[in-house]
Amino acid sequence: MLTITFEDQGRQPLYQQLYSRIKEEIEAGRLAAGARLPSKRKMADHLKISLTTVENAYAQLSLEGYVASREKRAYYVRPVEKMTISPVAPEPPRARVPRVPARRYLFDLSTSRVSLKGFPFSIWTKLMRESLRDESASLLEPVPPQGDLALRREIVNYLRQFRSMRVTAEQVVVGAGTEYLLGLLTELLPGAVFALENPNYHKPARIFQSRRVKFAAISMDQEGLSLAGLTKTQASVALVTPSHHFPLGTVMSVGRRRQLLQWAAARPGRYLIEDDYDSEYRFALKPVPPLHSLGSGQQVIYLNTFTRTLAPSLRIAYMVLPPGLSELYERKLAFYACPVSEFEQCALRKFIEGGYYERHLNRLRNLYRARRDVLMQRLAPLAGAFSLAGQAAGLHLLLTSRQGWPEEKMIRLAAQNEVRVYGLSSYYLGRAAASTVIIGYAGLEEAELGQAAARLVAAWGGG
Amino acid sequence: MLTITFEDQGRQPLYQQLYSRIKEEIEAGRLAAGARLPSKRKMADHLKISLTTVENAYAQLSLEGYVASREKRAYYVRPVEKMTISPVAPEPPRARVPRVPARRYLFDLSTSRVSLKGFPFSIWTKLMRESLRDESASLLEPVPPQGDLALRREIVNYLRQFRSMRVTAEQVVVGAGTEYLLGLLTELLPGAVFALENPNYHKPARIFQSRRVKFAAISMDQEGLSLAGLTKTQASVALVTPSHHFPLGTVMSVGRRRQLLQWAAARPGRYLIEDDYDSEYRFALKPVPPLHSLGSGQQVIYLNTFTRTLAPSLRIAYMVLPPGLSELYERKLAFYACPVSEFEQCALRKFIEGGYYERHLNRLRNLYRARRDVLMQRLAPLAGAFSLAGQAAGLHLLLTSRQGWPEEKMIRLAAQNEVRVYGLSSYYLGRAAASTVIIGYAGLEEAELGQAAARLVAAWGGG
Repeated sequence: MLTITFEDQGRQPLYQQLYSRIKEEIEAGRLAAGARLPSKRKMADHLKISLTTVENAYAQLSLEGYVASREKRAYYVRPVEKMTISPVAPEPPRARVPRVPARRYLFDLSTSRVSLKGFPFSIWTKLMRESLRDESASLLEPVPPQGDLALRREIVNYLRQFRSMRVTAEQVVVGAGTEYLLGLLTELLPGAVFALENPNYHKPARIFQSRRVKFAAISMDQEGLSLAGLTKTQASVALVTPSHHFPLGTVMSVGRRRQLLQWAAARPGRYLIEDDYDSEYRFALKPVPPLHSLGSGQQVIYLNTFTRTLAPSLRIAYMVLPPGLSELYERKLAFYACPVSEFEQCALRKFIEGGYYERHLNRLRNLYRARRDVLMQRLAPLAGAFSLAGQAAGLHLLLTSRQGWPEEKMIRLAAQNEVRVYGLSSYYLGRAAASTVIIGYAGLEEAELGQAAARLVAAWGGG
Repeated sequence: MLTITFEDQGRQPLYQQLYSRIKEEIEAGRLAAGARLPSKRKMADHLKISLTTVENAYAQLSLEGYVASREKRAYYVRPVEKMTISPVAPEPPRARVPRVPARRYLFDLSTSRVSLKGFPFSIWTKLMRESLRDESASLLEPVPPQGDLALRREIVNYLRQFRSMRVTAEQVVVGAGTEYLLGLLTELLPGAVFALENPNYHKPARIFQSRRVKFAAISMDQEGLSLAGLTKTQASVALVTPSHHFPLGTVMSVGRRRQLLQWAAARPGRYLIEDDYDSEYRFALKPVPPLHSLGSGQQVIYLNTFTRTLAPSLRIAYMVLPPGLSELYERKLAFYACPVSEFEQCALRKFIEGGYYERHLNRLRNLYRARRDVLMQRLAPLAGAFSLAGQAAGLHLLLTSRQGWPEEKMIRLAAQNEVRVYGLSSYYLGRAAASTVIIGYAGLEEAELGQAAARLVAAWGGG
């Protein structure tokens, strides 16, 4: 029979020590497959331990498949595979090369940043506390797959009031960011070929590639997505940004909107995805009504996000499906749990409901308009050599060299003055040459923007 | 050679008809193991169909393990264990019936509910307030795609302490629920054929269907996922639940764990996805070490979630990638923004860091153990007619009729007493008959469970 020295000072309970000891014997082959373990009683007597201890050890061995019991009482050793791979835990993988940026910048005019001043921390904290206090039971219930119903109703009200859209809460699907929702759409519309505006922000193309979904990049003209380009492809679903194209800033003409709606209505299974991203930020003109409100509402999938108006790290976006697709969604995709925390859906609902969201947007528009104005004013000395675009909406400007400087030159000169700007060509799929840089201003305060602009004037003044 | 009458009016493509016909022959034993199929060319000539049609049919048979090809061209019938399921089963189209429950229940013993008492509201509120107050700047910064680094470090500590795993924060990816992470894995491993345990909870199969990813459902035996079943398929990635199978409660034996690790190590590109779901809830015995800690760590993708231990509506899960896949992730998928709110990642990090999570788990274990005990005690009068399983872990029991009552009968009689229980067969892909019902006890309090159990005894007492 086994001899076991129990470690008194050991932190392991006795039954675990016994379990480990027998396991070792089995793994070393000293207790061969088929061998019968001593009865629990005998083992307990032999080792001067309680019967319960032996029972627990045997149960653990049995649970892990080292032994099996037959005829109720007797335990036999089971055949255990010999390991060909080392069971010893490997060294943790070496740290990767630290990603030291090649260059330090004083000012980064990235378009992906937002104002740190903008987020309404105190109100959000209050609403979060209220949600946790008042709605504790419902917070723990499973959330409907499309998202919290009360939040969806608030979104419907908001869209009616500010975007002239008449939709129902059943059509709304809340998701963890636009990219999540785009992914869902590729599953909702299997076999569809997607058309993308070119240039574009990088995500949609990468999502389609990663999901092995076919897509075509369509060039832009002055009115928006090129219809001639679109009809040349097999695309059945076009992803467009009619309110404000990123990064060109183009607002889609009404003529083009109508043409696209006609294109979509011409064949079953055709849809337009209207990404209304950034539509909240219009400074010069009144908001353009969305594509969605122009047509019958049967062909347009409307997408928007709270990422740009609240915080990038709060992952809440939504889409509005046409009624036909909404039924399809319920049949095909409602098995997916809503990926957004119910706690935050509840806080956001209170935020919109209480009128905080509207006030917040007004404050942000003023904040960003002031930033844009400082930037434009301080860039004025460049007006002779560069043309400016994109100032009416969104949170970035485009600056194009009138003499056709390649963008690399502009980026390099700016970098020498410790300011980071971004080339337009990087937003194109495929090769493109450009003389345009993009300047995002949402992430810096007015004083910083003034300094950054002064450095750009110094860098490019000779242009 | 086979004679096949193709149905012209049939909705099925020709290759599927051919595939089904050959499959029938194999399952009926008319095409015996070892028999050689006619060459593709001969089959095509014989049936007057295209070579491609035959190729597609053979490929499908091969994928599902009915035939194997040797010496490049010839296909042989493989020994088929009786298949009760057809992989890639099409989803039965659900009618959009009005969602009025046909029947009202006093007690719903669903496995998807958790305790409303369990969630630590006051601590969570405090930590959320602290996060919003102290970390306001970092909350607004873009989050690393894999999730908040400090949270990932806490997860690494937790895994080392409680699951004997040695991993680094670089290997951890935080996502909005297990289903989100499974979706990412289908993109990380394009072309992989996934193997699922059958029975299983429904989500993985639906995700794979929705993403049009190939998968095979593999039967379970006493030790876990059937290795024989697995090796008959073309599967390269097996999703398993070694700690505690849902719904059967099986704990995978060490022998089977080793066999699976060897299977995975035998060919590059093979992986095991270890879903460690529910491993926190063990009442009788010490936790079984994860598959991950048994092997070299190169073949196992570890998955776990906070959904079952915190709240289903807090969508936070994570996976640990082996170093090779972690680098691949960074190259291929790091463009996806982390879908989990940084606010909640921050609160969760503080929750683990402050020791609250460990205490919370201990409290939950006690709470659920008490609920289980009440339920078992009150179900004792049924012991003669029903056998009980699954009491050692997880949050549900399995009750099987010793006389082979069909589960429908048990469900119906329970419903007449206003208690809702769930049939085991609904967790199988494909047809299955069972005499077992599943009783989840996490969502009801002790007094309610006592009443529900008394009603079950009344309902089934004659059994």
